[in-house]
Amino acid sequence: MTAVSATDSILGNAAALACRECGAQYPIGPRYACDMCFGPLEVVYDYPNICRDTIESGPRSIWRYRALLPVPDDVLDTPNMEPGFTKLIRADNLARELGMRRLWVKDDTGNPTHSFKDRVVAVALAAARALGFRVLACPSTGNLANAVAAAAARAGIRSVVFIPADLEQQKIVTTAVYGGTVIAVDGTYDDVNRLATEIAGEEEDWAFVNVNVRPYYAEGSKTLGYEIAEQLGWRLPEQVVIPIASGSQLTKVDKAFTELGKLGLVDATPYRVYGAQAEGCSPVAQAFRAGLDVVRPVRPNTIAKSLAIGNPADGPYVLDVCRRTGGAVEAVSDEEVVDAMRLLARTEGIFGETAGGVTLGVLRKLLANGQLDPDAETVVLNTGDGLKTLDAVAPVVTPSATIPPSVEAFREVIEQLC
Amino acid sequence: MTAVSATDSILGNAAALACRECGAQYPIGPRYACDMCFGPLEVVYDYPNICRDTIESGPRSIWRYRALLPVPDDVLDTPNMEPGFTKLIRADNLARELGMRRLWVKDDTGNPTHSFKDRVVAVALAAARALGFRVLACPSTGNLANAVAAAAARAGIRSVVFIPADLEQQKIVTTAVYGGTVIAVDGTYDDVNRLATEIAGEEEDWAFVNVNVRPYYAEGSKTLGYEIAEQLGWRLPEQVVIPIASGSQLTKVDKAFTELGKLGLVDATPYRVYGAQAEGCSPVAQAFRAGLDVVRPVRPNTIAKSLAIGNPADGPYVLDVCRRTGGAVEAVSDEEVVDAMRLLARTEGIFGETAGGVTLGVLRKLLANGQLDPDAETVVLNTGDGLKTLDAVAPVVTPSATIPPSVEAFREVIEQLC
Ligand SMILES: Cc1ncc(COP(=O)(O)O)c(C=O)c1O
Ligand SMILES: Cc1ncc(COP(=O)(O)O)c(C=O)c1O
Ligand SMILES: [Zn+2]
Ligand SMILES: [Zn+2]
Repeated sequence: MTAVSATDSILGNAAALACRECGAQYPIGPRYACDMCFGPLEVVYDYPNICRDTIESGPRSIWRYRALLPVPDDVLDTPNMEPGFTKLIRADNLARELGMRRLWVKDDTGNPTHSFKDRVVAVALAAARALGFRVLACPSTGNLANAVAAAAARAGIRSVVFIPADLEQQKIVTTAVYGGTVIAVDGTYDDVNRLATEIAGEEEDWAFVNVNVRPYYAEGSKTLGYEIAEQLGWRLPEQVVIPIASGSQLTKVDKAFTELGKLGLVDATPYRVYGAQAEGCSPVAQAFRAGLDVVRPVRPNTIAKSLAIGNPADGPYVLDVCRRTGGAVEAVSDEEVVDAMRLLARTEGIFGETAGGVTLGVLRKLLANGQLDPDAETVVLNTGDGLKTLDAVAPVVTPSATIPPSVEAFREVIEQLC
Repeated sequence: MTAVSATDSILGNAAALACRECGAQYPIGPRYACDMCFGPLEVVYDYPNICRDTIESGPRSIWRYRALLPVPDDVLDTPNMEPGFTKLIRADNLARELGMRRLWVKDDTGNPTHSFKDRVVAVALAAARALGFRVLACPSTGNLANAVAAAAARAGIRSVVFIPADLEQQKIVTTAVYGGTVIAVDGTYDDVNRLATEIAGEEEDWAFVNVNVRPYYAEGSKTLGYEIAEQLGWRLPEQVVIPIASGSQLTKVDKAFTELGKLGLVDATPYRVYGAQAEGCSPVAQAFRAGLDVVRPVRPNTIAKSLAIGNPADGPYVLDVCRRTGGAVEAVSDEEVVDAMRLLARTEGIFGETAGGVTLGVLRKLLANGQLDPDAETVVLNTGDGLKTLDAVAPVVTPSATIPPSVEAFREVIEQLC
């Protein structure tokens, strides 16, 4: 192996890929698993000297952090969705209801296709192009499909998205509208995923964002952590609550906070990372509670479909992060998910998807059982949009009253409603 | 009447209300129609000396232009949705397909509730609070309802939204989720509107954003014009294409461009304003074609429901603007609307609602019939989100293929698709 150096890297300051299990290093390239131990690979950097000013004078998108991402230096010049730099919203109404002191919502519904997936896809696309791939692909159940199809359209390259055939029609529409190829597969998401992995091994110039270019893709989630810190005025929060599907996002927010401290961009103050799952798909929460290091796969059954990965690839790393930082992993019922979605909407005017309900629901539960400090500054992630998961709240969200078009009828009902 | 002066105005530099028909002036207050002639009132300003630097160093929201809006000086300190400063996207792929030179999409799907209505509601809310109103209300068929309910939730004040009872369930859900009062009315939108106007006359402390505080509300659309100019590098585009429902937005973008020129913030270069309607509700386009000054009401029948106002209040002013600037008003069929929605998604990865399809569809038609110059710099507005009007495209947007989960099956279909 060559020493870690980015001097001739085609992906900026990304210097190598390193196995998270055995540490073996590989040059930057189209690989994702360790030849020695099959462990997942992660990007390591030849970190630049970078100061706050440089970042602050950059674009209002994830590309302001491009020096810390595995993307080519000319990433700003190629057409892309320019995701990120979404709002960090001070949630005083919500804090008041929860009895908390300083609470923020990182609201990723402001991304181009309204979920955090635009971040990871933008990084995957930039890396994939530089590595010579010609097609952007993925297996997905929704948000990722939207983000891949939209990003490929803007970039002017081909996309092929694989989805389970029984997906809700609305998710098919919101993917197929971008004009790429959408392959419906008769089978479960696991079947779709397996098929995609097989095809990734055969189609040399297809970048499956969450399969064969996953090490690059995953780095995109670091930008959530960078933005939170910058938007707090270059500080780390004391507590952060993050949803878990594969667990990648959670580990990358932790990586971002650690990097910022090491680079001197923030004081390396302690922070606690909390992971959130739905009870109907809570393999990591179960392992956390049981004090285990391994995550036993489950069969998902929850309304939080975007988080329904029964065998989360980064589960063990999530356990490491939450234990190391003094956080926790918890799970809430579907009913609590819906309650939390409504709470966020009612108090802050933010309509998040089920994943947002899971995350806020878990925050609430952790508060109730004393694992989360109500007086510590806390950030909760809202990673997707309620418009994409209307079915979750539709049964319980109805008009206050139905009346004939007369002022008298209105008078009658409004008195009861006040 | 007092002279126009904002020295003691509670709404910033807003100095008075003036009748658009007879010119009579009234002090800033809760009124919307002229006592003399019943004409609509409009805000007039005691314009400040303001330079680009001041604006550029302001917040990344509509409030950077607060000196030109009828809002109190402390508007930044009260909780609100902070809409605006959405992306102006260079649409090279789309321009290429259309044979145009420099085309931009002003993409208001990036607003908090994903339509331009967040802008007008934020201004209405700020003005309403300063004027002493205690409840935020509106009659609506969708986007406005979402924006009002969300903004009131964030602001911590009560909302009462009136909708037709036969509205699609999804629009009811996306409004009611914010926890305000939602009154379903058995009747058409016109019935709902009439009822709301009656109630506005009785409930002294209710601000119906699009009825009794309409003069303030409407000013919010000026921010679209300000942003376009600033994002072009403090220049006016040569052509701009804008959807028409009541026609307010179009007239306010024109007002914004004119103001910027007068204030010396841009060179007052000529621009042409084009209005877009759906054929199924095209009273203004019909009047334009017929060379008339008055707009004859129609009964709407189009998939572009957010634009379906058969009796547009600002129709005559739209005609004035489009004629004065050398633009035009055109209309397209529902089929052209769907085609344009797909074109925008396919070329730029932007999924706009039916209103966006109307606007791009009209741009295309104007190009075809020679009324729009393909070589002139053009901005087209995408004012709402495709996620809210899925039914429009669902019938024609389907998976490319459905296969069993095997590589062989995949091979077979992919060859046909290439
Ligand atoms: C809205 C939303 N939030 C969070 C996640 C979790 O992502 P990860 O797989 O990185 O844990 C997903 C994954 O699909 C998602 O769609
Ligand atoms: C998405 C969208 N675009 C444009 C408009 C047009 O607004 P105006 O009434 O100002 O013409 C509306 C109005 O409801 C709308 O919902
Ligand atoms: Zn290894
Ligand atoms: Zn008058």
